[in-house]
Amino acid sequence: MLTKSEVKYIQSLSQKKFRDEEGFYIIEGPKITGEALASPQVKVNRVYALEEWADDNASSYPGVEVQVVSASELQKISQLKTANQVLAVAEIPKGRFRFKKHLLSLALDGIQDPGNLGTIIRIADWFGIEQIICSKDSADAFSPKAVQATMGSIFRVELLYTDLNEWMDQQEDAHFYGAALNGTPLKSLPELSDGIIVIGNESKGIRSDIMKKVSRKITIEKWGAAESLNAAVATGIILSHVKGSSE
Amino acid sequence: MLTKSEVKYIQSLSQKKFRDEEGFYIIEGPKITGEALASPQVKVNRVYALEEWADDNASSYPGVEVQVVSASELQKISQLKTANQVLAVAEIPKGRFRFKKHLLSLALDGIQDPGNLGTIIRIADWFGIEQIICSKDSADAFSPKAVQATMGSIFRVELLYTDLNEWMDQQEDAHFYGAALNGTPLKSLPELSDGIIVIGNESKGIRSDIMKKVSRKITIEKWGAAESLNAAVATGIILSHVKGSSE
Repeated sequence: MLTKSEVKYIQSLSQKKFRDEEGFYIIEGPKITGEALASPQVKVNRVYALEEWADDNASSYPGVEVQVVSASELQKISQLKTANQVLAVAEIPKGRFRFKKHLLSLALDGIQDPGNLGTIIRIADWFGIEQIICSKDSADAFSPKAVQATMGSIFRVELLYTDLNEWMDQQEDAHFYGAALNGTPLKSLPELSDGIIVIGNESKGIRSDIMKKVSRKITIEKWGAAESLNAAVATGIILSHVKGSSE
Repeated sequence: MLTKSEVKYIQSLSQKKFRDEEGFYIIEGPKITGEALASPQVKVNRVYALEEWADDNASSYPGVEVQVVSASELQKISQLKTANQVLAVAEIPKGRFRFKKHLLSLALDGIQDPGNLGTIIRIADWFGIEQIICSKDSADAFSPKAVQATMGSIFRVELLYTDLNEWMDQQEDAHFYGAALNGTPLKSLPELSDGIIVIGNESKGIRSDIMKKVSRKITIEKWGAAESLNAAVATGIILSHVKGSSE
């Protein structure tokens, strides 16, 4: 049985304010919870699961406390429309972020939608991008929606939330690329092994003060009439091009 | 004042069954409604708007009946969490679909999420793709969520819902490309001016009977650890590559 205060506590982690205070976030569903439990990088604090999941899985993770709950209890603490077998509470990583300058990285300037943010983290992971710098007003990657959208990539990509403007000023000799109208056509860009690709807000793009620090504006060529591309789609297209070919 | 039966009728158009019976769908928000009203391709049947929108816009579209409604009435007929000034009812296009073989096209094999489907239509529009063949079990492009996600591209891309398997059999000499694991690396693919790119279901990919008809499997190279890419993101990456450079 879950106590009322446990239910309240877990529900509170759906809000950024409480996540920041407590330092924990929620992971849901057997696939991503399984990944979290198997990853040495992720500190899972507690698992709430239906009996069936617990019977099949709990013994695989001897160090983790698995509490069996009923379907209706699980639904109470779930952020999903339909709760999915298991929910875990994990620690928000607190390690110091050390920017690795020799790698290709992403910077997000005000991505608002948690689903977009999560999808961008998943794309970054696909293309081997290890670090993402997020402006402070970007959506929180540890919100339940963002975590779900990362499909587990949240466990593999390092994030820094900071004043993006100041952070850019501190990066000496760094090359910043930014998606913009009237930039260099993406296709004429060479492969990149380092540098930071800045992705702007879904409707407003990159802020003008950030754009001033972008050394190269790049444009995804348009052939039809759509006004814009989704920010995550643009990220995927740019990364696919600049990562070149592994052959 | 909206009558109860009007409210019920408009609400019913959020369901595919009623859209199919009635032949109408819902468009919401000033931007996309404005595009619909300005497009000679879109037959807008009726517009429900707040007084403010009507004052500013109704005179620009003399042939269209604009009914002024209160904010609470608009919310009642809206499919958005927060209704956005205006809602229009438009005719689902009924023109006969004639496949243009000499163009590059998309085929969707069971895309389930209306948001993904809408985003794919928007991407297609960006890259100048004029026609999309959808398997019958794909999400409905005229559902409110899909329409919103197209950001107006639904008005510019022609869609055919059909038995994809049979349709593929009927296309003589057509080249089908499909995203798959262990295919040709995307980057080694030349620019394409025709052919049909098949995009598979979000979790299961392309069905095996459809995949058998794909003449060339293509793979987006992976550098990191994510298991997969979102279907819309994959579509964007593939189209960006095969459209080549306009220079």
